[in-house]
Amino acid sequence: MSVRTGREFLSIPGPTNIPEQVLNAMHHPAIDIHRADFPGRTESLLQNLKNTFKTEGRTFIYIANGHGAWEAALSNACSKGDKLLVLESGLFANGWGEFGRSLGLDIEILAGSWRKSVDPDKVKERLAKDTDHTIKGILMVQVDTASGICNDVKAVGKAIKEVGHPALFMVDTIASLGTMEFKMDEWGVDLAVSAAQKGLMSPPGLSFNAAGPRAMDVHQTAGLRTAYWDWTARMGDAHYLKYAGTPPEHLLFALEQSFEILNAETLENSTLRHQLLAGACWAAVSKWAEGGVLEFNVPDPAERSTGVTTILFNKGYTPEPLLKYCNEKCGVVVGIGIGALEGLAMRIAHMGYANAPMLLGTLSAIEMGLQALEIPHGEGGTSAAIKYLSENVPIS
Amino acid sequence: MSVRTGREFLSIPGPTNIPEQVLNAMHHPAIDIHRADFPGRTESLLQNLKNTFKTEGRTFIYIANGHGAWEAALSNACSKGDKLLVLESGLFANGWGEFGRSLGLDIEILAGSWRKSVDPDKVKERLAKDTDHTIKGILMVQVDTASGICNDVKAVGKAIKEVGHPALFMVDTIASLGTMEFKMDEWGVDLAVSAAQKGLMSPPGLSFNAAGPRAMDVHQTAGLRTAYWDWTARMGDAHYLKYAGTPPEHLLFALEQSFEILNAETLENSTLRHQLLAGACWAAVSKWAEGGVLEFNVPDPAERSTGVTTILFNKGYTPEPLLKYCNEKCGVVVGIGIGALEGLAMRIAHMGYANAPMLLGTLSAIEMGLQALEIPHGEGGTSAAIKYLSENVPIS
Amino acid sequence: MSVRTGREFLSIPGPTNIPEQVLNAMHHPAIDIHRADFPGRTESLLQNLKNTFKTEGRTFIYIANGHGAWEAALSNACSKGDKLLVLESGLFANGWGEFGRSLGLDIEILAGSWRKSVDPDKVKERLAKDTDHTIKGILMVQVDTASGICNDVKAVGKAIKEVGHPALFMVDTIASLGTMEFKMDEWGVDLAVSAAQKGLMSPPGLSFNAAGPRAMDVHQTAGLRTAYWDWTARMGDAHYLKYAGTPPEHLLFALEQSFEILNAETLENSTLRHQLLAGACWAAVSKWAEGGVLEFNVPDPAERSTGVTTILFNKGYTPEPLLKYCNEKCGVVVGIGIGALEGLAMRIAHMGYANAPMLLGTLSAIEMGLQALEIPHGEGGTSAAIKYLSENVPIS
Amino acid sequence: MSVRTGREFLSIPGPTNIPEQVLNAMHHPAIDIHRADFPGRTESLLQNLKNTFKTEGRTFIYIANGHGAWEAALSNACSKGDKLLVLESGLFANGWGEFGRSLGLDIEILAGSWRKSVDPDKVKERLAKDTDHTIKGILMVQVDTASGICNDVKAVGKAIKEVGHPALFMVDTIASLGTMEFKMDEWGVDLAVSAAQKGLMSPPGLSFNAAGPRAMDVHQTAGLRTAYWDWTARMGDAHYLKYAGTPPEHLLFALEQSFEILNAETLENSTLRHQLLAGACWAAVSKWAEGGVLEFNVPDPAERSTGVTTILFNKGYTPEPLLKYCNEKCGVVVGIGIGALEGLAMRIAHMGYANAPMLLGTLSAIEMGLQALEIPHGEGGTSAAIKYLSENVPIS
Repeated sequence: MSVRTGREFLSIPGPTNIPEQVLNAMHHPAIDIHRADFPGRTESLLQNLKNTFKTEGRTFIYIANGHGAWEAALSNACSKGDKLLVLESGLFANGWGEFGRSLGLDIEILAGSWRKSVDPDKVKERLAKDTDHTIKGILMVQVDTASGICNDVKAVGKAIKEVGHPALFMVDTIASLGTMEFKMDEWGVDLAVSAAQKGLMSPPGLSFNAAGPRAMDVHQTAGLRTAYWDWTARMGDAHYLKYAGTPPEHLLFALEQSFEILNAETLENSTLRHQLLAGACWAAVSKWAEGGVLEFNVPDPAERSTGVTTILFNKGYTPEPLLKYCNEKCGVVVGIGIGALEGLAMRIAHMGYANAPMLLGTLSAIEMGLQALEIPHGEGGTSAAIKYLSENVPIS
Repeated sequence: MSVRTGREFLSIPGPTNIPEQVLNAMHHPAIDIHRADFPGRTESLLQNLKNTFKTEGRTFIYIANGHGAWEAALSNACSKGDKLLVLESGLFANGWGEFGRSLGLDIEILAGSWRKSVDPDKVKERLAKDTDHTIKGILMVQVDTASGICNDVKAVGKAIKEVGHPALFMVDTIASLGTMEFKMDEWGVDLAVSAAQKGLMSPPGLSFNAAGPRAMDVHQTAGLRTAYWDWTARMGDAHYLKYAGTPPEHLLFALEQSFEILNAETLENSTLRHQLLAGACWAAVSKWAEGGVLEFNVPDPAERSTGVTTILFNKGYTPEPLLKYCNEKCGVVVGIGIGALEGLAMRIAHMGYANAPMLLGTLSAIEMGLQALEIPHGEGGTSAAIKYLSENVPIS
Repeated sequence: MSVRTGREFLSIPGPTNIPEQVLNAMHHPAIDIHRADFPGRTESLLQNLKNTFKTEGRTFIYIANGHGAWEAALSNACSKGDKLLVLESGLFANGWGEFGRSLGLDIEILAGSWRKSVDPDKVKERLAKDTDHTIKGILMVQVDTASGICNDVKAVGKAIKEVGHPALFMVDTIASLGTMEFKMDEWGVDLAVSAAQKGLMSPPGLSFNAAGPRAMDVHQTAGLRTAYWDWTARMGDAHYLKYAGTPPEHLLFALEQSFEILNAETLENSTLRHQLLAGACWAAVSKWAEGGVLEFNVPDPAERSTGVTTILFNKGYTPEPLLKYCNEKCGVVVGIGIGALEGLAMRIAHMGYANAPMLLGTLSAIEMGLQALEIPHGEGGTSAAIKYLSENVPIS
Repeated sequence: MSVRTGREFLSIPGPTNIPEQVLNAMHHPAIDIHRADFPGRTESLLQNLKNTFKTEGRTFIYIANGHGAWEAALSNACSKGDKLLVLESGLFANGWGEFGRSLGLDIEILAGSWRKSVDPDKVKERLAKDTDHTIKGILMVQVDTASGICNDVKAVGKAIKEVGHPALFMVDTIASLGTMEFKMDEWGVDLAVSAAQKGLMSPPGLSFNAAGPRAMDVHQTAGLRTAYWDWTARMGDAHYLKYAGTPPEHLLFALEQSFEILNAETLENSTLRHQLLAGACWAAVSKWAEGGVLEFNVPDPAERSTGVTTILFNKGYTPEPLLKYCNEKCGVVVGIGIGALEGLAMRIAHMGYANAPMLLGTLSAIEMGLQALEIPHGEGGTSAAIKYLSENVPIS
């Protein structure tokens, strides 16, 4: 017996909740790939991506998940043996580095922490030592969904500029684009990567590159280019070249609607909404943490993602019984810990198509579980979240 | 600026939340009304209705809203001038009576209250006086969605039986079927009415009659029968007669899926789930009520619907600003007061396809509004709801 | 083994093919019946109905199939014992008359034919004899989907006017509205009936009344009015009164899209399209008929519906093997004969959301069947249909 | 004015018509990528692919179009500088070769024709000269959708075997899988490539590799392997490795339904259905060709694809006016010529979810256009197609 018969609450950091109008857009017969209006629709998507990345550079749509966009970025901007500096802050920058290693790149990890964001000073320090500029690129994520860390892209970009190092600054925004500020050109990012299934509220299967002028320069002589990923080929006039073959029609129909929704809300309001939801989540977790079992993986709120919160379990408790309770009793799917945190953490997503009652419903179910399973926790977590929102959501 | 971009929470007592698989079932081309498998599908729906009403009688599917099923019931079982006794407990039994009056029936209201359920003793008393049995039928609702009252059908049925009065016992289960116990045959109900868009989780547009043997007897000579509503015509062999013409294919496809879901959960568990959700809602409202503004419309929990809770506003406060806040800031649609409670009450639905996080998300949004708008209320309402569920949902 | 794996071709005269955008519109969560934009959407639908009926009168939307709209029309405009004159031309006017009889009306059938449209002179003749005006209403269909007859509403309206008879002229346009010219006010029609699932391309479940000033006058004293069907109640200000209760939200969402499509094409072009498709169908059937087995049920093309063609089988042949072949081998569902033509005729629909390849695909499958089953037929039917369209569809 | 208001007929060789149940499957909320039943669903898809390729080898699902699967195949089985022999028969084997060239492979084209299938003897002859086995792989398509050629994979496989050459035999079945016989293991194919959006009736965005033991051997030392495409990584235990990251959930839901449909029909019947539809199409085109303008691109029927027919225009006529007529007047989208045939040919697809009335409706619309635009053509094309099917579709 349960109280779960109803809509499943999907509170994982991707794929995220997909709006009805996005799903409806995919419920459409296939169209002729040569239809007259199709190139214009692609142009509009590429422009929406530029607006969202805040770049005057070129954008590219790949039929791939985020890992595919990683490979696309590396293959377009690197040559075998190039050295890349990976700024560790969790699972994903390192994973991107692993992809680079498999492509024959020389990967150096700037050791970081799963609990603290990348330190711009350490980046500066490392680059300063690289006087002959053997480092060709720097890989960082804006948000790491495993650790829940949010790096300060602007500050790292500034650090690179200050040390005068010419390496390309390559940033993975897969878990952040559309949910928070990202100013590619202004912040000195040369090459950005993203995907459709998180902040952009679309089904998984599309991912993106955005390339600024310095990335495009390096691209001219990049040795890892392949026909499928190649930016230059995708800049050709023929429409099918934009996708290196048959366009992924239904996923594009979906993405069009996602941009409709994002543009209607505006990026600025979406950013603010994510901050408010994160604040509410943190208010609840702060309370619960008083019990000594739950603990923020990222202690400093300023270094936390506003899209996903990673929570450690202490004192011998593990997340599994709680997640099982939430799922089986309440129909709430909370994210598991992954990578180094497998079996040790849970992750609450508040990312993309997410509003106050979706988050508060999720927090409530977790609190039900904490109580029912007698996991020590401070009382009043959800109350604190409600209070936070009531005080911080502007009334007028 | 708001935190509403996400799925709308529909917390009104009908139409209720429609499961994805029900909506998907309607996304189907029309089918030939003469298709070989169609009569069997209709039979299966009629049988599912029998199981849900718990009757061995006949069931009928109307293309109509609940008010249409009211008229169907009256026209099949009454003759001009028949006297009907309406057991008042809110808006809807009286509304049904109004329909009867327009059909030329003699409607007597047994005055009741919007805050208390029908008193079986008063029914007994009134019937006892009707020694010549001029009263031909008794109209009652199981649940009144305006007042939030739940009447004790079993007790009233017993009262009628005890006084030995032959009037047909006619019960409207529009707002209760599928959400709570209803035992038509065992409780002495002769004629029941229901609809698809509440506990049955389907889109509005289908409604139902269930007729026991005594209703069917009276039907033989009922003077108000019409070709469209007529039970006898609908019992003919030809499939199109079941719907007096073209079957409402898409609504039937939807209803099939609703029964899939209801049968998978079982009526018993659905009943228990509604009790648990109602208990949680009441725990929250009880807390809030300590502030002196909010108040249960139905003081006695035993007389409250487990599908919808009606809440009065006192001390000069009105629901409108709170409902506006919930809707515009959070994307939560809470029901307004209707009938005698228009402008004076709000209604929280926890009916049909509803689980713990859906309800708790709704309660949280209301609590946000109470705080943001500084409406006096006891603190910790949602906390109390969480606690209630954590203690009452069986763990294993 | 078959060649049917692919989209089913539904070539029956209702429910007809539903456009994707209409089905998509129904794939939507339920909405609050009190939503601020809902009354305006209803107004827009009522206005679209006026435009389509070409009337300045009032329009009404019923949750019902066409037979429900029949009953609505009669109950709003008639009193027990009223005499109605039914103009026979197939199954459906008589069926409407049967509904009237069950309501206590005095039904007189003006005998007609299943193979010829109503003769205006005979109507005039009958009315001229009714010098004391005991006939209160005249029932006719514009198109009878059983016989395939199309009556000349304008001519019958003129005949009634010429004889100066005050009976209400009541016309069923269920199988014609949206597919051909209908000018309610100009042609002297007082009360029209229609439904959503044929020319209007929506799922079955909605039907309509349109009432002119003379019908509205009679309505004031009509004795058969009931609460559910009552026009006057439905003209009340409150939105829910327009539907006598909960609005059939999803069916309304569908109908909105149907009007989008119809308005985009224009009624004039839709009329012309139906004429062209009918012409093509008739060209094919004319050829096939040379074999002596198939025969138009309605010999005179001027009296045939442009939405459905009824075809008789002669010389001991029956339609069943051919229909089975079309369905099982090709995935084409052709309409069976009904009423007096059950087992004797087939009906090819070219109604609603129907274009040239849909019709020609259907005709081709029938021609395949005629050949495969060695049913005698003139050769080149589909060729003739193609030729007809190539010559009659304007190139520019 | 047109007769196109109705369902669009998409008669292009991919993406093809998508069944309703496939589209419905995608109308589903995202699911947790860690859901317990997900790995089993992936296994089932991989097994279905094995069954369809008829191989005991390994199958791989890529989020990519067909060109992505080309690159995947090459990168997994080749090393820089490897020589590949491309067997020309239209646009696509050469295109695959171009992809290889961009990856640094040494591509040799065995010159062929756009009008004749690959000659196994010429393959044998070329391989026989390669005594030191510098040729590492042989690229061929089973069907070329540009030319409409179908190559004899079995015969070429036999030729390779007979000459005893160890090169990997790599076959692109993108335009054929699911529509005709393909026996990977039996015919000696080492590596096959395919995609979802043609014979498999799914939306574009998924493509496939199937690798036999010899391909897997070469793979161990292949120098072009990358993290994203790598087979070995995708054979890891963790479910997300199967997709090198986030699974393309909605496209997988779609593919599951496609296999439901294909398995229900059986591959054998699907093959036969495609032969029958192709035969019908060819009967029509043969007639039309008598006018001297239209001409089969592939003269020999035994060398034609059963999924798409390419038709040349002669005597100064071009396809464009005819295709425009079909589209704008009838709602029928016929494929344009591409590659060397751009502006010179049209392509009629009869591939995937395609039945007799879909094809015959398309042929009818083309015949309408031929007549309306006075393009010289033999009469009775569609009649001939109907006759062909009536004689060849088994009655019982």
